[in-house]
Amino acid sequence: MTASGARPYVSPHDVTAAWSGAGGDRVVRVVVDAAGGDNAPAEVVRGALAAAGPQTHVVLVGDEAVVRPLVPVGAHVSIVHAPDVIGSHDAPASAARNKTESSIVVGLKLVHRGEADAFVSAGNTGAVVAASLLYVRRIPGVQRPAICSIMPCMPAPIALLDIGANAECRPEHLRQFAVMGQAFAIEVMGIPAPTVGLLSIGEEPEKGTPAVIEAHQLIAADERVRFYGNVEGRDIMNRLVDVVVTDGFTGNVTLKTIEGAARGILTALRSTIDLSVKTKVGGLLLRRDLLRLRGALDPEEYGGAFLVGMNAPVIIAHGSSKARGIANAVHQGRRGVVSGLQGTIARELGTRAGAV
Amino acid sequence: MTASGARPYVSPHDVTAAWSGAGGDRVVRVVVDAAGGDNAPAEVVRGALAAAGPQTHVVLVGDEAVVRPLVPVGAHVSIVHAPDVIGSHDAPASAARNKTESSIVVGLKLVHRGEADAFVSAGNTGAVVAASLLYVRRIPGVQRPAICSIMPCMPAPIALLDIGANAECRPEHLRQFAVMGQAFAIEVMGIPAPTVGLLSIGEEPEKGTPAVIEAHQLIAADERVRFYGNVEGRDIMNRLVDVVVTDGFTGNVTLKTIEGAARGILTALRSTIDLSVKTKVGGLLLRRDLLRLRGALDPEEYGGAFLVGMNAPVIIAHGSSKARGIANAVHQGRRGVVSGLQGTIARELGTRAGAV
Repeated sequence: MTASGARPYVSPHDVTAAWSGAGGDRVVRVVVDAAGGDNAPAEVVRGALAAAGPQTHVVLVGDEAVVRPLVPVGAHVSIVHAPDVIGSHDAPASAARNKTESSIVVGLKLVHRGEADAFVSAGNTGAVVAASLLYVRRIPGVQRPAICSIMPCMPAPIALLDIGANAECRPEHLRQFAVMGQAFAIEVMGIPAPTVGLLSIGEEPEKGTPAVIEAHQLIAADERVRFYGNVEGRDIMNRLVDVVVTDGFTGNVTLKTIEGAARGILTALRSTIDLSVKTKVGGLLLRRDLLRLRGALDPEEYGGAFLVGMNAPVIIAHGSSKARGIANAVHQGRRGVVSGLQGTIARELGTRAGAV
Repeated sequence: MTASGARPYVSPHDVTAAWSGAGGDRVVRVVVDAAGGDNAPAEVVRGALAAAGPQTHVVLVGDEAVVRPLVPVGAHVSIVHAPDVIGSHDAPASAARNKTESSIVVGLKLVHRGEADAFVSAGNTGAVVAASLLYVRRIPGVQRPAICSIMPCMPAPIALLDIGANAECRPEHLRQFAVMGQAFAIEVMGIPAPTVGLLSIGEEPEKGTPAVIEAHQLIAADERVRFYGNVEGRDIMNRLVDVVVTDGFTGNVTLKTIEGAARGILTALRSTIDLSVKTKVGGLLLRRDLLRLRGALDPEEYGGAFLVGMNAPVIIAHGSSKARGIANAVHQGRRGVVSGLQGTIARELGTRAGAV
C-alpha cells in the first residue's frame, strides 16, 4: 500500500460533522436554491432547515408563496423571493444571462453583493456554472473553474476534478486544477499533505493524449504540487492518491461509471444474499452491513460538488438530492467560507503570484 | 428497463462454450505468443493446450528450448521458434519494426503469410497493435483499428471500444468504431440486433467535446448503425445498449475504473461478510455466491480484447492472464475466424462500399 492508502478509516459522517462545526462562532450565510433539483422545494427546504443554526444562517431563494409555508417560525432561515426557475432543459448560458428573476441568478447575486457567503443548488449544473461566472466571478488568475467532487472511497474520500465544467481542457487548465484540487483537499477535506495524480492510460509520463502528456510536464514542474504522477482508472477506488485531476469529459464519465458500477454490484449482491442467507440472524446482520457499505459509497453523503476557482463557495448538489444531501451541501458551503480555500487559490494562481 | 436490458442472463461460460465449438469441423489455426504476459510461458502454454483440439490447432511462438518441454507429445499444438521477446517497457513502434525475431513479430508474420488464421498475445499491447498494423494490416477502408473489450455486465456482456489503441480520435474514427462494434457484437458475441451508444456527458446530442458532438451527427446519419444516441458512464453497467463507442483514452480510463471499482467493492464486502456472518452455513453459502459474482465480473472470462479492423483476428489478452484467460482468448480467436466479422467490416467500410 502507498502512504495515502494506509490512512485510517474516515466516514462521511466524520467529514460533515467537522464541516458543520467549522469556524466556531463565526456566522456564515449560505444561499440555498429552493427551486433546484428533482425534490424541490420540500426536500430542499427540509435540508436547509436541518443545516441552519445560530452560526449557519440559510437564505432560501425561490417563490415566496411556495417556500414560506414550509418554514416554521423561529428557524435560522430567511427567504428571498425569486419568481422564475431555470429548468433542467434550459440552455445554460442564455438562461444564466436572461432569466434574471430565477432562483439561481437571484441567489448568486446575493453572494455577489456580499449579502451572502456561499451558494448551494441542486438545479441545472450548466446554468449554475454559467451564472457563477457572471455574478460570483473567477478568482483573478484562474483560467477555468472546475467542479470538484468528493468521491466516497474506502478508507477515506478522495477529490476528483473536473467532473464536467470543461469538456475540453488545455494543459495549463489541468495544471491549475492540480493546484486547486490540492488546496481543496487541504482546506475543505482536511487532508494535511494531499498527493495529486493525473488521470491517464498508463503510469509513464509519455502515456495519454498530447494535452495530458503536456499537462504532466507542467504539473511535474510546479513545485507547489505534491505530484504523484499519472494514475489509471483502477487507482481511483484503490485510493492511490488524494486528488485525481482530469478534464471535465473524462471526469464526468468516470464519476458516473463508478456510481453505476457500485449500484449495479450492490444490487446484484443484495439479490444473491436474499437468496442464500436462510438463517435469520446472518441475514439481518448482513443487510445492516450492506446498507452501511452502500452509505459509504453514496455521493449524497457529502452533499455535492464544489465549483473551485470562484470568489465564493458554490456547491452543486445532485439533482436527486434529498434533505440529507442538501444539509451536507450547506455544511460544505460553510466549511468553504471559513477555510482559507479562496485565499490559497488566489495566492497560488493569482497574477501577483506570477502565474500566467 | 430498455429492450436490451431485458435480455436473459448470459454467463461468460455460455459465450466461450459457443466460441470453442464455432465453425463445427472447420480447422482453425491460432497463434499464441508463448513469451507474452506476466505468467508466460507456463500459464500461457497451459491455456493453449486446454484450448487446442482437432479443430483448433494452436501454434506456440517463443523460445523453442523453453516451450518444447512444456508441451506433451500428441497435443494439437506446434511450436515456431522466436528467440527474442518484446518486453512491457519496450517502445511499441520501434520494437514492432526492429525486433524481427520476437514472438510477436514472428507470430503475426505467420498470419500475414497465411500459415495461421488468428493471433493471441498477453504481451505489450502497444507492440501488438503496432506490429499488427505492419504485418496483418488494416481492412481496406478502415482508418484506425480499435481495441474492443467484452465487458462482463449483468445480465449479459456488452462491447466497449476503443479501450486504448487511439488516445485521440476524430469524429469519423468514432463512426467507424460504431460500425465495427456493431459487427463485432453480431458476429463474435452472437447478439442478433445490437444497439450502439456513444459515450458522452449527457444524453442530448449537443453534449460532449466538439469531436463527440460531431461524431453523434455522423453516427446518427449512418443508417446501418442501430444508434441509441448518447449514453453516460452509469449506463454501461446498467446495460442500456449492447455496444458503447468512445475514444481510446476515455475507454481505457472507463474500463480500468470499472475493474477497480468492482474489485474494491467486493473486497470491502468480503471483509464485511467475514466479520458479520457468525453462522457457518450462511457464511459458506455467501462465500460461494460472492465467488460466482466475482467470476461474472472478471475480465479474464472472455480471455481478452479484440483488435477490430484488421484483416485477421488479433486478440489482446490481459497481461495477468492465467491459463483460463489464454484458453478463452484462443476460443475468441477461433470465433473471430469462422465468423463473418472481417468480411462484414470490409463490406461496410471498404472503399468499394463508398466509405471515405
